[in-house]
Amino acid sequence: MNQYMQLAVEAAKKGMKASQGGPFGAVIVRNGEVIAVAHNEVLGTNDPTAHAEVAAIRKATAKLGRFHIPDCEIYSTCEPCPMCLAAIHWAGIRKLYFGADRHDSAIGNFDDLFIYQLMEGSADSPLLHPEIIDRKECAELFHLWNEKEDRVMY
Amino acid sequence: MNQYMQLAVEAAKKGMKASQGGPFGAVIVRNGEVIAVAHNEVLGTNDPTAHAEVAAIRKATAKLGRFHIPDCEIYSTCEPCPMCLAAIHWAGIRKLYFGADRHDSAIGNFDDLFIYQLMEGSADSPLLHPEIIDRKECAELFHLWNEKEDRVMY
Repeated sequence: MNQYMQLAVEAAKKGMKASQGGPFGAVIVRNGEVIAVAHNEVLGTNDPTAHAEVAAIRKATAKLGRFHIPDCEIYSTCEPCPMCLAAIHWAGIRKLYFGADRHDSAIGNFDDLFIYQLMEGSADSPLLHPEIIDRKECAELFHLWNEKEDRVMY
Repeated sequence: MNQYMQLAVEAAKKGMKASQGGPFGAVIVRNGEVIAVAHNEVLGTNDPTAHAEVAAIRKATAKLGRFHIPDCEIYSTCEPCPMCLAAIHWAGIRKLYFGADRHDSAIGNFDDLFIYQLMEGSADSPLLHPEIIDRKECAELFHLWNEKEDRVMY
């Protein structure tokens, strides 16, 4: 096995055994050095966003002291769900390795495949029928942002 | 304005003024009670996942002591990006209100529209060309999960 993926698999097993979360692990590597190892922590922390990839990104960015880590690669035991894929994009990571895919995760009754179908428009959810309110007042925030002279883009 | 959206807009302005993050705010409400108010914290925390909705979900689930909060509604000053939309799904929240949309956010040069295009297949990214490695060993994790008698689904 790939050495980093093996670390991710070991993390997944450890997290699962400790009932911290589902069977998912992720590793972030920079120039061959392991920067972060994480497993899913949804159950242990009661944080539904604490997927392995998000947990690894939080650790890596804290360690490196910056929110943009394009010099890093991420290894995930499973194809990232849309939350995690977008998180990887926001972190600026350009290289993704994964093992199992969204269809494999359905074996464990996880929603990854369903959420991809939502994003693609082939499944439905109340979240796809939001109520839009106070758009003018909210859109104005972007003009305030553009007027902020010391703004930092991310 | 809607009272909860007004709180979200105020949070966005506060976060922007304090250089904690971009012009985004979110509020989570349960039975008319405000459970969490948050603004984007990407710049203040160096956490690229600390969008307003994710920050609000983390606060609300910590406060309620559970990772699944289907009894809550979320108000966001802007249409959630795919990371946040999937996070809202994972939290079990069924009712979403937002103000500005992905096109408005492009005024501020944010990537929301681009990430939606990635998800829909009408834009490209290296993340859409992952390397798949060790699939067998990774998929095996889901069988281990199914064999775990005390597993909690989430």
